Amino acid sequence: MRKFLKKHYVIAPGPTPVPNEILTEGAKETIHHRTPQFMALMEETLENAKYVFQTKNTVYALASTGTGAMEAAVANLVSPGDKVVVVVAGKFGERWKELCQVYGANIVEIALEWGEAVTPERIEKALRDHPDAKVVFTTHCETSTGTTIDLEGIAKVTKDKDVVLVTDAVSALCAEPLKMDEWGVDVVVTGSQKALMLPPGLALITLNEKAWKLVEQSKSPRYYFDLREYKKSYPDNPYTPAVNMIYMLNKSLKMLKEEGIENVWERHRVLADATRAAVRALGLELFSKRPSNVVTAVKVPEGIDGKQIPKIMRDKYGVTIAGGQSKLKGKIFRIAHLGYMSPFDIITAITALELTLKELGYEFELGAGVRAAESVFAKEFVGE
Amino acid sequence: MRKFLKKHYVIAPGPTPVPNEILTEGAKETIHHRTPQFMALMEETLENAKYVFQTKNTVYALASTGTGAMEAAVANLVSPGDKVVVVVAGKFGERWKELCQVYGANIVEIALEWGEAVTPERIEKALRDHPDAKVVFTTHCETSTGTTIDLEGIAKVTKDKDVVLVTDAVSALCAEPLKMDEWGVDVVVTGSQKALMLPPGLALITLNEKAWKLVEQSKSPRYYFDLREYKKSYPDNPYTPAVNMIYMLNKSLKMLKEEGIENVWERHRVLADATRAAVRALGLELFSKRPSNVVTAVKVPEGIDGKQIPKIMRDKYGVTIAGGQSKLKGKIFRIAHLGYMSPFDIITAITALELTLKELGYEFELGAGVRAAESVFAKEFVGE
Repeated sequence: MRKFLKKHYVIAPGPTPVPNEILTEGAKETIHHRTPQFMALMEETLENAKYVFQTKNTVYALASTGTGAMEAAVANLVSPGDKVVVVVAGKFGERWKELCQVYGANIVEIALEWGEAVTPERIEKALRDHPDAKVVFTTHCETSTGTTIDLEGIAKVTKDKDVVLVTDAVSALCAEPLKMDEWGVDVVVTGSQKALMLPPGLALITLNEKAWKLVEQSKSPRYYFDLREYKKSYPDNPYTPAVNMIYMLNKSLKMLKEEGIENVWERHRVLADATRAAVRALGLELFSKRPSNVVTAVKVPEGIDGKQIPKIMRDKYGVTIAGGQSKLKGKIFRIAHLGYMSPFDIITAITALELTLKELGYEFELGAGVRAAESVFAKEFVGE
Repeated sequence: MRKFLKKHYVIAPGPTPVPNEILTEGAKETIHHRTPQFMALMEETLENAKYVFQTKNTVYALASTGTGAMEAAVANLVSPGDKVVVVVAGKFGERWKELCQVYGANIVEIALEWGEAVTPERIEKALRDHPDAKVVFTTHCETSTGTTIDLEGIAKVTKDKDVVLVTDAVSALCAEPLKMDEWGVDVVVTGSQKALMLPPGLALITLNEKAWKLVEQSKSPRYYFDLREYKKSYPDNPYTPAVNMIYMLNKSLKMLKEEGIENVWERHRVLADATRAAVRALGLELFSKRPSNVVTAVKVPEGIDGKQIPKIMRDKYGVTIAGGQSKLKGKIFRIAHLGYMSPFDIITAITALELTLKELGYEFELGAGVRAAESVFAKEFVGE
């Protein structure tokens, strides 16, 4: 391979690029967490966090990644033997199922083909068949397949029922529209290394009153993730908070608020539109039946070694996208449009993809993908 | 203007992007400069600096920008009344002339149209007409017009004559091939914020024995830039060195050495080729008669407000290129391919340029420039 300076571009669905303004916050001196200074910072940060969920509920910050917040949701809501509905249409739906198994839930699984999106009707039927289900676990964006569900529609189904709707918005928060209170979503969990533009290592969870009732009743063992302790010590953490991650979260939330949540959603929509247009112009097919604004999953074309696509893009061009996970390994690749990315990150990803496809012998018109993405940007920014 | 997150891309001929590995060196604790630790670092750094000039001469680091090193060259080589040949074909040739005026030299000006490159023949003629000239001042790359001279050919003319050849390689060093000793260039000056991938604030100068003879004879007043003092205290500085800039220079030189100077030159050549191909594919014309691998100067097409091009690119798309300087203001714009840039920086610049030209009403096929640049990269990296 020819020696050529490589700059590194992370165009994967997490970790995502972290802006310099946030990184420098993380590089600030670590202060002690049991101080009025840090308490004031925590309170401001968690208060501002409500905005990105569009909720009035209290938000808690866990020193863990998103999976920790998922475990917190299961451990605090589900007692052994409780009936729960779990949607499984990808790797992160599977994670809900595994967690529910570990905590001894009685699982009603809605198993879908990977790439499909659960519908409100499907949830309604499951709850009709199982009126004793206490919780519904969903994945707002199934990152493994690039699929977003109609969460608003699903919340309409659960809102007036005696069931708690939980969604894993680890990758979706800020990238897909979410109005927690207005829609009636009961529990939302997220992670830092996605559209919040932070390094990995912090998770957020927020619950409404309906969900808190289950928390008080849960008989599952939990200690580090016992949300009753977080409620008691709020805005402090019961254990040591990740001080420098909080500095960074504080900055990130201010940046997102300053941008405006509708603009943040819209930005993800524009970059996703451009990516999808580029992929189609290259004669490639989207994998998802309901493509997300988080990440675009693309079917590997026939005759091409799918594992080589992200490998060449990373090792030769410095552009890190994601391959397929679990049973999709080698069958899809995924280009993110998540977090601190610009139109030029999309153009970069598509250019590197085109050069890579050319090397792998795929036949297409060089430049067709970039032109299609550029046309979307021209329409959005120039108006034609 | 629509609100959309802007990431910032510096695609100007200085300052250029600084890699994170270098920035973090600059963020390290400032140690005292009169210590064995710092002396060891200085010595290693200045020793490594010889490599990028391809010289065995001692290199001196000045706590100044490139203009300071240019003044050092003039003050140390030229006594009042000395005859000097100065090539003026742009803003930086003018700077040599202004400096020579300030120091009372008897100036023989080779005045060229901006965009032209002085030839070895032209230098030879000037020296034939003025055999008493003591110094020839040249600009390796005239950044204001994107023009590189045939420095190797010019050195062949001056090498065996009793005249000192000085070149301003502020923007050219590492971007254009330079073999100081092999070619016989007597004095080279450069600045940090170009292909050395550093922030502004440091300059380097190196002289051979032939030049040192003039330094010993010079009657011009100089103190901060008195190179005799630098020689005496080497590797220490006579005054306080820019400690953190030295940390960064040390790292930069190691990175460049690791990459290999031929690879560094070749990298600039490839990015320049792609930029020129893109510009031509958009139906635009290069300004320079002998285009550099440092920066591509492009004529503003008829009927377009030239000052708007860099303005829209920066304010709307976050992409900073350069406009024209002095009499070229509004008539050209300049896209750099200098320092820590990747093929994707070029693609980014061309995409932003296309979107901007579209907004300004220039007629062209959207995507044509990007495709042309991409084709150069495909040829270089994929081989077709």
